[in-house]
Amino acid sequence: MNCKELMNRAADNIRILSVSMVEKANSGHPGGAMGGADFINVLFSEFLVYDPDQPLWAGRDRFYLDPGHMSPMLYSALTLQGKFTIDDIKNFRQWGSITPGHPERDLMHGIENSSGPLGQGHAYAAGAAVAEKFLEARLSKAMMQHKIYTYISDGGIQEGISSEVGRLAGNLGLNNLIMFYDANDVQLSTACGAVSCEDTAMRYRSWNWNVITIDGNDVQEIRQALTNAINEPERPTLIIGNTIMAKGGIKADGTSYEGSVKTHGAPLGGEAYLNTVKHLGGNPEDAFQIFPEVKKLYDDRKEELRRIVALRHKQEEEWRKQNPELSAQMDEWFSKKAPKIDWSSLEQKRDIPTRNASAACLGILAQQVPNMIVASADLSNSDKTDGFLNKTHSLVKGDFSGAFFQAGVSELAMGCMCIGMMLHGGVISAMGTFFVFSDYMKPAVRMAALMQVAVKFVWSHDAFRVGEDGPTHEPVEQEAQIRLMEKLQNHKGKDSLRVFRPEDSDATTVCWQMAMENMETPTALIFSRQNVKSLPQGNNYDDVRKGAYIVKGSDEKFDVILLANGSEVSTLVDAATLLRKEGYKVRVVSVPSEGLFRRQSKEYQQEVLPSDAKIFGLTAGLPVTLEALVGAQGKVYGLKSFGFSAPFKVLEEKLGFTPDNIFKEVKKYISK
Amino acid sequence: MNCKELMNRAADNIRILSVSMVEKANSGHPGGAMGGADFINVLFSEFLVYDPDQPLWAGRDRFYLDPGHMSPMLYSALTLQGKFTIDDIKNFRQWGSITPGHPERDLMHGIENSSGPLGQGHAYAAGAAVAEKFLEARLSKAMMQHKIYTYISDGGIQEGISSEVGRLAGNLGLNNLIMFYDANDVQLSTACGAVSCEDTAMRYRSWNWNVITIDGNDVQEIRQALTNAINEPERPTLIIGNTIMAKGGIKADGTSYEGSVKTHGAPLGGEAYLNTVKHLGGNPEDAFQIFPEVKKLYDDRKEELRRIVALRHKQEEEWRKQNPELSAQMDEWFSKKAPKIDWSSLEQKRDIPTRNASAACLGILAQQVPNMIVASADLSNSDKTDGFLNKTHSLVKGDFSGAFFQAGVSELAMGCMCIGMMLHGGVISAMGTFFVFSDYMKPAVRMAALMQVAVKFVWSHDAFRVGEDGPTHEPVEQEAQIRLMEKLQNHKGKDSLRVFRPEDSDATTVCWQMAMENMETPTALIFSRQNVKSLPQGNNYDDVRKGAYIVKGSDEKFDVILLANGSEVSTLVDAATLLRKEGYKVRVVSVPSEGLFRRQSKEYQQEVLPSDAKIFGLTAGLPVTLEALVGAQGKVYGLKSFGFSAPFKVLEEKLGFTPDNIFKEVKKYISK
Repeated sequence: MNCKELMNRAADNIRILSVSMVEKANSGHPGGAMGGADFINVLFSEFLVYDPDQPLWAGRDRFYLDPGHMSPMLYSALTLQGKFTIDDIKNFRQWGSITPGHPERDLMHGIENSSGPLGQGHAYAAGAAVAEKFLEARLSKAMMQHKIYTYISDGGIQEGISSEVGRLAGNLGLNNLIMFYDANDVQLSTACGAVSCEDTAMRYRSWNWNVITIDGNDVQEIRQALTNAINEPERPTLIIGNTIMAKGGIKADGTSYEGSVKTHGAPLGGEAYLNTVKHLGGNPEDAFQIFPEVKKLYDDRKEELRRIVALRHKQEEEWRKQNPELSAQMDEWFSKKAPKIDWSSLEQKRDIPTRNASAACLGILAQQVPNMIVASADLSNSDKTDGFLNKTHSLVKGDFSGAFFQAGVSELAMGCMCIGMMLHGGVISAMGTFFVFSDYMKPAVRMAALMQVAVKFVWSHDAFRVGEDGPTHEPVEQEAQIRLMEKLQNHKGKDSLRVFRPEDSDATTVCWQMAMENMETPTALIFSRQNVKSLPQGNNYDDVRKGAYIVKGSDEKFDVILLANGSEVSTLVDAATLLRKEGYKVRVVSVPSEGLFRRQSKEYQQEVLPSDAKIFGLTAGLPVTLEALVGAQGKVYGLKSFGFSAPFKVLEEKLGFTPDNIFKEVKKYISK
Repeated sequence: MNCKELMNRAADNIRILSVSMVEKANSGHPGGAMGGADFINVLFSEFLVYDPDQPLWAGRDRFYLDPGHMSPMLYSALTLQGKFTIDDIKNFRQWGSITPGHPERDLMHGIENSSGPLGQGHAYAAGAAVAEKFLEARLSKAMMQHKIYTYISDGGIQEGISSEVGRLAGNLGLNNLIMFYDANDVQLSTACGAVSCEDTAMRYRSWNWNVITIDGNDVQEIRQALTNAINEPERPTLIIGNTIMAKGGIKADGTSYEGSVKTHGAPLGGEAYLNTVKHLGGNPEDAFQIFPEVKKLYDDRKEELRRIVALRHKQEEEWRKQNPELSAQMDEWFSKKAPKIDWSSLEQKRDIPTRNASAACLGILAQQVPNMIVASADLSNSDKTDGFLNKTHSLVKGDFSGAFFQAGVSELAMGCMCIGMMLHGGVISAMGTFFVFSDYMKPAVRMAALMQVAVKFVWSHDAFRVGEDGPTHEPVEQEAQIRLMEKLQNHKGKDSLRVFRPEDSDATTVCWQMAMENMETPTALIFSRQNVKSLPQGNNYDDVRKGAYIVKGSDEKFDVILLANGSEVSTLVDAATLLRKEGYKVRVVSVPSEGLFRRQSKEYQQEVLPSDAKIFGLTAGLPVTLEALVGAQGKVYGLKSFGFSAPFKVLEEKLGFTPDNIFKEVKKYISK
């Protein structure tokens, strides 16, 4: 068997395993996996550099799959690599198996990312490529010389995010990014021609990518393209592989099944399955086999890899010896431990917008967290991520010494790329935009939450007080919406997202501290555009860490509890003053994070919000934002409609968000 | 004053009004408006065809602004057209004014769309262009010969949706779509070079657009480009206008303010403002003036338009005479009245997936609503919009006789284009994808809700019962999330979105009926992937119209109410049977729409859910989805975490969504 025959045999082995696991599960996507088998085989058996004995080696090449439904292809290739067993893939898509329908991040088994929602996977890769260059600039080429591979399909290429990523990767000159586009021209419900006449090569060239078009089922062409890509000095590479959907597939009647839409999302089925396995040189009676010659191919590669990485480890050791401090720092960065930060030099001004207080925190981080990247979707001077930018500079092509990622008006790509940076390891990322545009980021928030990636979302302009920009820019339902992710648990039983809306500048510091300490889940920070009056002197900000607490100046015994988060707390403090003038006793409770509060002891929750208390909530969001906190006898004053365009002081009057009006509303509520 | 001088004078008039309204409001975006003034002036004074006396004329050219922050430019041009008064624009961004910070749809004043979130505006235009061609194919060229203009800026061009729209418009050959790209190379926080080195012309050529690059501040070049665009027979046209941000701006120190990032989002301020007005030939003391010669230019155009549209109206009359039935139909379509539909021939099968029941409804609509377009994001055979497709065919380049819009894997563009079809008028649109991907559509849902556009969202695969595809494809928080829009009111005080999750096949029919009757707000329909057992024979499906009702077979007196929507209702019916065997009396309540239920009389709400009743809720979403319905003493059994990959029957067992387990849970709850 010559080399080419052997490689084709290995690809067919991937095909057989792929269709077999789908057949056994009676569920899944065989067609794409069959088309992509040749590429994945060449990549995994000849190019991808990893340490067979240290799956978490920081210097490994990364592979990010975009079309998660092509998991059979990935699982099969990883089975040839020895990262999955035949039993694992026989359990494809079953309860408790490590081979779920769409891959779920599992580094020990070679799965770098969860995937499913098309387009996000390759954005993680672009983010990882940024991280690699960022780390290279801080450490050395010796430690960071790996490549970032990603695999995209027709669906992903149609998602808008592909253009956001294409533009950004081109602009940053990410020559360490190599993307294979599996152009099989068949998607779930139609052939691609029904929805696109795109010249994809031209599109990527418009962003200055290195574009190579090949027969994606031809070993030699794949090899040449990958070699070309690896040697590209300046640009990201797109390899457009024209592939044949369901390559090697045979129908029940013995005719070819190649190119059929039907093979996209369903098992080949009965006779077609058996015919296909036979045609591919497998044993239909016992298809879950690794052919001996294919086993040898991958075993040989493993030995070769051991030689390759031995050299790399030697280079690494030399660098570590010469750079003991950096070396220790690198280990710290890759440890996933929260960075140590000395916040003592930070003194917040009182009565400022919380976005400005956030800027002050970001200034500290820029100085003390050398592995942090902050991004903004063209709003750094509004979302105040410029607090970070002002102490560093932007990442640009050829120079990754800066730490600010200018994403342009591309919220979703920003979100996914920042996730990708953290998936890569060694980097902590945060990103800013207006809160109302968190809508655009929800798909990324969900994946960060599912994968437990500790990115920080910074959302400013948190309410109708955006003012003149009007309803399109005024979040109303967004806080209730994003807090649903605090209620949704990840697979470790933690709240899948931690959300803070701090009540003043000092509380902002504490929330940023908690965000930086939280390396287990993503964190969202929601900030005001306008000035927020600070809470009374002497307020105990350590209590912010409990998610909810009694604000300084509250009366020991009380007729009513006033409850809010964010800038509404200070409105309540003022309303409380008015109420006290009329003889009422008032407790004010601030709840920067309901999710965190619910994780406190029942006793503490009861102490802060006794179940027999009268509780009045105030929110610039929908009333439902606080309804669970005030309880059945409580009352929430909130915004029930879209906002309006007018100066925010006028809106406060018109919408009733003034201490005077709240004072009246509370009296109405108490007297009921 | 020669023609060119006059045109420049008119453009400067737009500049002066724009900077003046921003200055007066002390808030807004002057720079972009000044750069785009020349284009908007040429378009509005020489090209845009509308009937000065009938703002709602169906044959008018449409203009969709994408960058809503450039509202001063639009308001100024419309003031020259006489659609706004000087007083109106003096009230820019103030409470109750008709000139809010970002434009809000107002056809009587020439505002075709609300805008703000970048990228959506031009997608509406592409949708309108589809509608125009669709209607032309059904009526005649005489009635539908108008053009769809749209205006996009650097921010919009960076949003991923621009590529989704670019691909779709190119593939459909929308030569009636003319897009001006205001390339001023300056965005909010940086110059564009920081985030893009894109060759935008090349990108649009990759989708077969007609691309023309011009000096966007040169009258003659703008004119030629527009003429070229109008005569383009096959392709959409992109006019890339290289413009100068803040053209004509002068700083306080008398030097040029042109090209400065600072002019993007803030008033020019004091001296700079005065210097600029003077430099542009205005009177700094009294800048809100329409120059007499500019008034004459626009008055003359108005007279010319009256001649142009007189001819068009004559053509229309002739066609109407020859096609009285079609003519009546057209009036009906543009009336915004709900279409008359005879549902009597529809007999739903029992015990089928509600997505299949939806397909049956869509079959009726395909036959009876000739002005309806249905779309899918590459999932028609899964989301079952193919119930419509199977009775028509897809829209393709050169042939708009079909009524199915294949959007490819581009959920956001699909959403916005379907909105655009209805903004155009004459068309009703619906669109399908998986419910979990409603996340990608949220920005479009919000704008449809704000603009009160009656699109229909069809979301299938509504819960963890998606099964093997795993957590990335299993909605959990999505129902609670989207129902927040039922709680958010539009500016008419209506629930901004109507949401239905029907409980079986017959209820699906009623929900589709209500969706088609609802021409006031968008409607969302959420359907199951798996079979759903039909409710007991004799169930009164008219009650579905009340949003919640007592299911047939409930006991008159009861120990507990079991409450759910969607497929969980049938689980409760089975659990009720088990409970009755042990002597319990049970009421089962189905709540396909909490929003609609809350709009019923207090008496009815009390009748269905008496406040002293014990209520047990079951939801495949987060428990919070039903918490307001079960009340403080109630209990909700829901899903608290992301889903898992396994066959859905296994998941039902593991997650406890079986009648047996619910029976136990209810007993536990009652016995408390």
